[in-house]
Amino acid sequence: MKKKVLKFGGTSVGSIERIVHASKIIKRESDSGNKLIVVVSAMAGKTNELISMSKSVSNNFSKRELDVLLSTGEQVSCALLSGALNKIGIKAKSFMSWQIPILTDGENNNARIINMNVTQIDNYLVGGGVAIIPGYQGISNLGEITTIGRGGSDATAVAIAKIFDTDSCEIYTDVDGVYSTDPNKIPIAKKIDKISYEEMLELSSLGAKVMQSSAVQTAMIYDIPLQVRSTFTDRQGTIIFNKENLNYSKAVTGVAYSKDDAKITLQSVEDKPGVAAEVFEPFEINKINIDMVIQNVSSDGKTTDITFTIKREDLNKSLEILKKNNKIRFKNLSYKNNVAKISIVGAGMVTTPGVTYKMFRALSEENINILAISTSEIKISVIIDEGFTVKAVKKLHNIFNLN
Amino acid sequence: MKKKVLKFGGTSVGSIERIVHASKIIKRESDSGNKLIVVVSAMAGKTNELISMSKSVSNNFSKRELDVLLSTGEQVSCALLSGALNKIGIKAKSFMSWQIPILTDGENNNARIINMNVTQIDNYLVGGGVAIIPGYQGISNLGEITTIGRGGSDATAVAIAKIFDTDSCEIYTDVDGVYSTDPNKIPIAKKIDKISYEEMLELSSLGAKVMQSSAVQTAMIYDIPLQVRSTFTDRQGTIIFNKENLNYSKAVTGVAYSKDDAKITLQSVEDKPGVAAEVFEPFEINKINIDMVIQNVSSDGKTTDITFTIKREDLNKSLEILKKNNKIRFKNLSYKNNVAKISIVGAGMVTTPGVTYKMFRALSEENINILAISTSEIKISVIIDEGFTVKAVKKLHNIFNLN
Repeated sequence: MKKKVLKFGGTSVGSIERIVHASKIIKRESDSGNKLIVVVSAMAGKTNELISMSKSVSNNFSKRELDVLLSTGEQVSCALLSGALNKIGIKAKSFMSWQIPILTDGENNNARIINMNVTQIDNYLVGGGVAIIPGYQGISNLGEITTIGRGGSDATAVAIAKIFDTDSCEIYTDVDGVYSTDPNKIPIAKKIDKISYEEMLELSSLGAKVMQSSAVQTAMIYDIPLQVRSTFTDRQGTIIFNKENLNYSKAVTGVAYSKDDAKITLQSVEDKPGVAAEVFEPFEINKINIDMVIQNVSSDGKTTDITFTIKREDLNKSLEILKKNNKIRFKNLSYKNNVAKISIVGAGMVTTPGVTYKMFRALSEENINILAISTSEIKISVIIDEGFTVKAVKKLHNIFNLN
Repeated sequence: MKKKVLKFGGTSVGSIERIVHASKIIKRESDSGNKLIVVVSAMAGKTNELISMSKSVSNNFSKRELDVLLSTGEQVSCALLSGALNKIGIKAKSFMSWQIPILTDGENNNARIINMNVTQIDNYLVGGGVAIIPGYQGISNLGEITTIGRGGSDATAVAIAKIFDTDSCEIYTDVDGVYSTDPNKIPIAKKIDKISYEEMLELSSLGAKVMQSSAVQTAMIYDIPLQVRSTFTDRQGTIIFNKENLNYSKAVTGVAYSKDDAKITLQSVEDKPGVAAEVFEPFEINKINIDMVIQNVSSDGKTTDITFTIKREDLNKSLEILKKNNKIRFKNLSYKNNVAKISIVGAGMVTTPGVTYKMFRALSEENINILAISTSEIKISVIIDEGFTVKAVKKLHNIFNLN
């Protein structure tokens, strides 16, 4: 008998049929004698629908009331799933975040879970019940409804796994695991059986939207193994856990790519302490997200080149910002609006020599020009022409034996 | 400066545009210096949609979870209305029933409000804020979400008026008041400016669905004047209050009629103590609602005739029930499946002689046969052929000077 957290995402509870289907998965787990805490998201599309309603009222809708509004999404899923479980003879009950309570800290729309009361739910589990809990929300110390950011149901699941000290945390979603690259675009993609938290984080930040990153981070900090698996098949999913538990037969675990990027290069920027901060401060103020930043060591000791990438939609505003910025001096500004970032990720990379070289040679073999390079301990990213994206991903997937 | 309850029904908050419109009414009341507690229903159609979802899961959906589900409807309206008020510069905040709290007694789906904490909201009003509260719901003494029955937002409004001792209770709805008869079917219908609680209750029970009856009853018990008015026009509505405050220039206030009725007569029923109970007990068990019951004094001391009306859809089942009932003996059973009940209602009736006679003569002038008669202190109802409904209502409306 194990104590488990099962989390069902929006598509897994996206219709009555799917809620009924999820109830059968829960029944199977319950019939196996497991004690279950189930976390649910809002039905697919619901949160967007509610956000859109709030925007119809005001583009600057009250953050407090937005949380009151959005929290209804998971409440609906909880009630329907509990009802579906009762119907098939499973003792189950929804617990709203104020009933538990789930305490959060921080501001509306962006709170974080700091604690939960375990007594009531533990008693319910001991009595043979399945506890159904809304993801993505909690209450503040003043008793206000709070939400914890998009994808926050993953964070709720991980927090419950930690606070209730469960044996496992299973994320039921609409994909059957984490893939070596995007299976929708690159059919040769392979499901990864096991992956480290770090690799998962890199892949997530590169667009593999299987789990919310902050939830993976929390799991990493507390060493809570995660299982990502499909609600719709019985196939084994992907286990995300500590890299010490992984046997790295492969240097590279996955190939990720980002879409809709643009690149800006400032040439011959006057090199002085704090210049990077002065370049990027107005971007922060204008809430434009900077992705990769590459700055070479100054060749002449006086000037340097700074290259960075942004989302394509932010390009025009970014160029304006740079032109208005009178705190920096540079000779030339160039940009390219159709670039892609291709990254190889692998915790085994550090112990495998030649990965970087192998990547660059592979791209050169395909006549793909590398515009910029950035590396971290478990990742190498390059910026290339967007038109070469699929070609590059396939080539890298191939030469690192991910097929 | 007055303390007011304003209640907005489902159609009054039925779309974003209507919520924005309601926010302007509230702003006008607030700008006039009133302290406001606003009660809102779920957006029109929402409660039915949620009920239908629950029925897709199970026809016997958990009552507890149904309340968790349904209570989200008003929560959504509260958040959107608060956001709309904030947008136009009004300090406003939603208070969920567990935050106040609104305490209820009784079972799920059919609880009743027994108390509320006033401190938090009174402080908020003193600070110049408008409190937005979900109708139709509360929490039990165990902290479970409860709902108080369809149309329960009216009951919430009246309970708030009582517990917060407000100066008025204004019900904003999609009609501009209570009418002398159904304005949709009988165009000569006139809006009633003032009506007593008792008359309103009779009219409600006869199909004038302007306010929920139990809310009117509560208002009557605590002598809380109600104003029913339209959200969509500035016309004065109807004031519902104590009949001592009414000046009865007219004997009759309104004419109501019911549709889809059927009549059953048991002839020569063996007359003994308890016979009526034995006739109707199986109807209670089968949850068939009996409307009018007429039993004459026994002419021979041995047998009597019993006539009663039911909804037409229950006719076949009712006939079956009577045939199976071996506790009663009768000579003959007759029925008519297309009858209507026409009622005149007026608190001035008791002090005006000849109302009954005038009604019967008027119907006879139109060659309308009266199949059964039932009277109460402020109401006379007759059963007639359904085909004569409109003719009868118009005639009565006319002779009692309601035009």
